[in-house]
Amino acid sequence: MREFDLLQHVYQASAAVGGSDRILIGPGDDMALVALQGRHLLAAVDQLIDGRHVKLESTPIDLVGRKAIARSVSDVAAMAGRPTASLVAVALPVGFGEARAKALFDAMRAAAESFGVPLIGGDIAMHVHPTAPLVCSVTVLAEPATARGAVMRCGATPGDSIYVTGSLGGSLQPDGLGRHLTFTPRVAEGIALAELLGERLHAMIDISDGLGRDASHLAQRSNVRIEINSEALPCHAGCDWMRAMRDGEDYELCFAASGDVPRTVAGTPITAIGRVVAPGDGSHGTGTRVIVCHGSQRLAGDMMGWEHAAP
Amino acid sequence: MREFDLLQHVYQASAAVGGSDRILIGPGDDMALVALQGRHLLAAVDQLIDGRHVKLESTPIDLVGRKAIARSVSDVAAMAGRPTASLVAVALPVGFGEARAKALFDAMRAAAESFGVPLIGGDIAMHVHPTAPLVCSVTVLAEPATARGAVMRCGATPGDSIYVTGSLGGSLQPDGLGRHLTFTPRVAEGIALAELLGERLHAMIDISDGLGRDASHLAQRSNVRIEINSEALPCHAGCDWMRAMRDGEDYELCFAASGDVPRTVAGTPITAIGRVVAPGDGSHGTGTRVIVCHGSQRLAGDMMGWEHAAP
Repeated sequence: MREFDLLQHVYQASAAVGGSDRILIGPGDDMALVALQGRHLLAAVDQLIDGRHVKLESTPIDLVGRKAIARSVSDVAAMAGRPTASLVAVALPVGFGEARAKALFDAMRAAAESFGVPLIGGDIAMHVHPTAPLVCSVTVLAEPATARGAVMRCGATPGDSIYVTGSLGGSLQPDGLGRHLTFTPRVAEGIALAELLGERLHAMIDISDGLGRDASHLAQRSNVRIEINSEALPCHAGCDWMRAMRDGEDYELCFAASGDVPRTVAGTPITAIGRVVAPGDGSHGTGTRVIVCHGSQRLAGDMMGWEHAAP
Repeated sequence: MREFDLLQHVYQASAAVGGSDRILIGPGDDMALVALQGRHLLAAVDQLIDGRHVKLESTPIDLVGRKAIARSVSDVAAMAGRPTASLVAVALPVGFGEARAKALFDAMRAAAESFGVPLIGGDIAMHVHPTAPLVCSVTVLAEPATARGAVMRCGATPGDSIYVTGSLGGSLQPDGLGRHLTFTPRVAEGIALAELLGERLHAMIDISDGLGRDASHLAQRSNVRIEINSEALPCHAGCDWMRAMRDGEDYELCFAASGDVPRTVAGTPITAIGRVVAPGDGSHGTGTRVIVCHGSQRLAGDMMGWEHAAP
């Protein structure tokens, strides 16, 4: 069973029910959008699990807490949202210890304050099973930052160019440490892009699973195909284009826009990496959403990335 | 380490930081209240963990999903809120199985729809540790339902009477089944009380940890003492007053109000069970917040209840 398949089941069932007309963006995007007394609220939830998203054994506890918050705030960036507040639920392993638990919460609280999502609610529970791992679940609330409104995954249009912020690859070191523990979510960049480009900013996603996978989510929701030029990819030192496509945990933004796009926003470089084409184009099956153009080769890129799949 | 102590640490630290002036009710009540573009939003998060809050082995999966949602919606009732939407994060045990996972999500979705909090977001992850348990974390969003505004735990005043909805005790059977799996959160009752009583509805909490513990939370936040008359307690069949005080998982409302209170709201009986007095009254230490008057005895009731403490 793959997580993505299961989420698809949930989303489709939710869509079938139809739900409330107050739900403007339902499950399946980076955040949901609900109308509340005529105002718009963004909300999303994300989990951080020991052994899956972080190695507790070898990671300073303050970086664990920081990452739990930061990866949720990255979803706010991907919607061009302005952060509002957060809620955390933590299931603590047996014998975790009070000092360590306090350090974890202090780190989450400090990160939440610094990213503009002060902690407004929390739940703490102790596991019973002796080997059960730390589970942190973080809900973030936000609001669309500009008149452009929330930027969804759908909306990419043939003729658009595809861009990424910053550089990609090598975020997660073999020892479990690395930039995935210290990145700053691209909230300022997301808002600046929405302000600068307005309606020309067609679709956006944050890169957590790997550029290949996340670009394919964007392409699928937009019903387009994305062609990425391997030579254009901005790679971190020591990473080749393949790692930039696959590694994940970059928490950079990937977006589709028409017209001119500045080369930096909020002090962060913006790189054009490819273009949006019609879904039926090219020689690959219609199921392929991402093509990597590497020299004369055209490679299917949808699966370039990683999924927190069942072992 | 006790969960309550750790939460207190988090709340105090949050209060010390002060946070945003948009946070109208911070952590420590049933829900937080934030101002969003001039409107008020309620939010809370709660977890359901196998072995701690439910016995997965002996409980039908649809009741597990239902309870995960229902216990979070009970917090909405306790604030006299009108439910808006929910988000769920689930960590699945290894080998949980796709059919069972779908059944769990279908049950959560159906419960969420029926309680007025349609699922707008979700996260699913697989555990790595082979014996790691199911963890469901549910965030609910709501808005104050009446002009009275959100009803907090603080606000109980000497001279008020203390009331509960419905009957107490015996919700959790020894086999793990029972009413704690099938209760309907008292949302309609909470809203009706706020409408009928207005400003005379001084404070409210839902009973999850046991009446003794939850009344002591209310008394502590209000800086009062609560005297409960054991003979007045509405007990479920087969339960004595002690079980009504201790059992927990009732998900009834306990509230403090002045003046006349109807004997039923929204079809549910309301029972006066005691009164609010000044914190220094009586012969017990100032730390005692709840006194149970049983015949000629006056018993400390603060610890009558249960806590999901570390083993």
